[in-house]
Amino acid sequence: MNKELFVGVDLGGTHIRVALVDPVGKIVHGLKTPTSISSGATQAAQRLVEACLDQISVAADWGCQVKAVGLGVAGKVDRQQGKVIFSPNLMPLNGYPLARELETQLCLPVVMENDANVFGVGESWLGAGRNIANWIGLTLGTGVGGCLILNGKLWTGDDLGFSGEIGHMVIDPRGPLCACGLRGCLEAYASGRALLEGVGRAIVEGKLKNGPLYDMWHSGELTPEAVQRFSATGEPVAVELFHRFGSALGLALANLFTVLGIRHAILGGGVSASWDQFIASLQKSLIEHSSMLARGSARILRSSLGDDAALLGAARLAAHHFTTVQSNLQ
Amino acid sequence: MNKELFVGVDLGGTHIRVALVDPVGKIVHGLKTPTSISSGATQAAQRLVEACLDQISVAADWGCQVKAVGLGVAGKVDRQQGKVIFSPNLMPLNGYPLARELETQLCLPVVMENDANVFGVGESWLGAGRNIANWIGLTLGTGVGGCLILNGKLWTGDDLGFSGEIGHMVIDPRGPLCACGLRGCLEAYASGRALLEGVGRAIVEGKLKNGPLYDMWHSGELTPEAVQRFSATGEPVAVELFHRFGSALGLALANLFTVLGIRHAILGGGVSASWDQFIASLQKSLIEHSSMLARGSARILRSSLGDDAALLGAARLAAHHFTTVQSNLQ
Repeated sequence: MNKELFVGVDLGGTHIRVALVDPVGKIVHGLKTPTSISSGATQAAQRLVEACLDQISVAADWGCQVKAVGLGVAGKVDRQQGKVIFSPNLMPLNGYPLARELETQLCLPVVMENDANVFGVGESWLGAGRNIANWIGLTLGTGVGGCLILNGKLWTGDDLGFSGEIGHMVIDPRGPLCACGLRGCLEAYASGRALLEGVGRAIVEGKLKNGPLYDMWHSGELTPEAVQRFSATGEPVAVELFHRFGSALGLALANLFTVLGIRHAILGGGVSASWDQFIASLQKSLIEHSSMLARGSARILRSSLGDDAALLGAARLAAHHFTTVQSNLQ
Repeated sequence: MNKELFVGVDLGGTHIRVALVDPVGKIVHGLKTPTSISSGATQAAQRLVEACLDQISVAADWGCQVKAVGLGVAGKVDRQQGKVIFSPNLMPLNGYPLARELETQLCLPVVMENDANVFGVGESWLGAGRNIANWIGLTLGTGVGGCLILNGKLWTGDDLGFSGEIGHMVIDPRGPLCACGLRGCLEAYASGRALLEGVGRAIVEGKLKNGPLYDMWHSGELTPEAVQRFSATGEPVAVELFHRFGSALGLALANLFTVLGIRHAILGGGVSASWDQFIASLQKSLIEHSSMLARGSARILRSSLGDDAALLGAARLAAHHFTTVQSNLQ
């Protein structure tokens, strides 16, 4: 086994995943625990420190050394300061210097990045984006994360704490309310939350008056996966919601292909499993809203790393940081 | 005077501008003529060759040598093949190998690029974009051209023949028809053509029934500059058209700032002279449609090179090409 290892962390709203990753991207040991952030930032950081220490100790048992830690966090992050700026699903961490804290306690370099951005780094390194220089990444989950890979590298813009926030492109200023407070963001159409809210709206508008979808929504048990199953059986409200979902994605991607002069996108995240329910509407909308791209030349791909993409991307950033620091010292 | 000079060409729908430019961006000699493209591609190319030969001969009289020619063309261009792919305002040139033809006849390297892209190169070199690493460029004329400058360089994407086509982002799929055939492109709101068509639509819809704006539209003498003057005097239809103009620009820029994680834009082109009529609506819409960017941090700037931006950008690309070829030979 390679003597140098890296810890990759994927810190989401519901789960933390922590893994030991070798320099060629093999996950050699891993752990998944509930996030349980409600007791506050300090305790959450402490649990994260312990999870990392576990991995470091496993590495030591194998005669290996962890060289750096990479942290993917759902939210807006200040990479320079190692601070979470704003995370809607990890509220207690807002303003907390999470990476700095880990660095102090672990005595290791810790790099932090947005979770959709580490998804992009992971897929670009070992997944569906391996041989594609320029592509748009989307993680379809409760919300919609996004990233841009340009010239084979994660695009970070002006280092404002966000980049690739495709989920918050406004598709229709008169559209449904988004979690961010604006109206008609892509996320308000093409996310797990949008599917559930869409069912609720159909009930309010009298388009769904009874039946199993109605019952499930009322019992509070409805999930995006269930909406997918209803759509697959032809339930009209579910079918229409996935049509809107795909159409919104197609419009957003058409606009970005037009502006960036590129033609590849990679879709990941849990809700991308509903691929068959939205891909036809996506492709149709993409063609309808593209005036520059030659018809048929766009390529919409599925993530090939699944849940591991963000974890591997975080480890990759850690490895890259370590290598850069090393070569600067020489 | 510097012994090495470059020819910059700005080939637009109505005028061709040709100039001798020195390596630090001084225009040392120039010429502007009507485009008169109707007699076909071969004759248009011939006139362009003659205009370049005039400049080359002026340079020779001064004991200088022209090293390369840069060509900015309004349309989709194949830079590798030196060919115009599609130019709505220079139709006879569609498919014509303009740069190759010039290269053969002038015995000089000729580089070709989209006109909004050379605007970006020019402003980045010597204009409002000089010290800004990442920015969005828009040329507001009859249509809307666009470019992206990323890491101080013109972004060309996957070399598909277009990039930075911000004018053809679809702002509202139910919006007015655009010259490209789609509905609701930015260009259908924020261009000279959109202003004129907007007055026509106001008449059809009965919102404008008489008065000087009505009369001017009917006489066929209405120009974007005239709509600006009407707006400045408070004429309601003109005011509303510039409000829509600015709002559409604000929405498009908000979306691009969100996606790219950047905060600068530079506006040029003839219709940007109507700045006072649209900038307040632009700024308001930009704030309303931005969920990621800190309020007040966006910077919307005016082109500082005016008509010379494209010309200088084209010359800059020629100089860059010449330098690259030289260093590859050494």
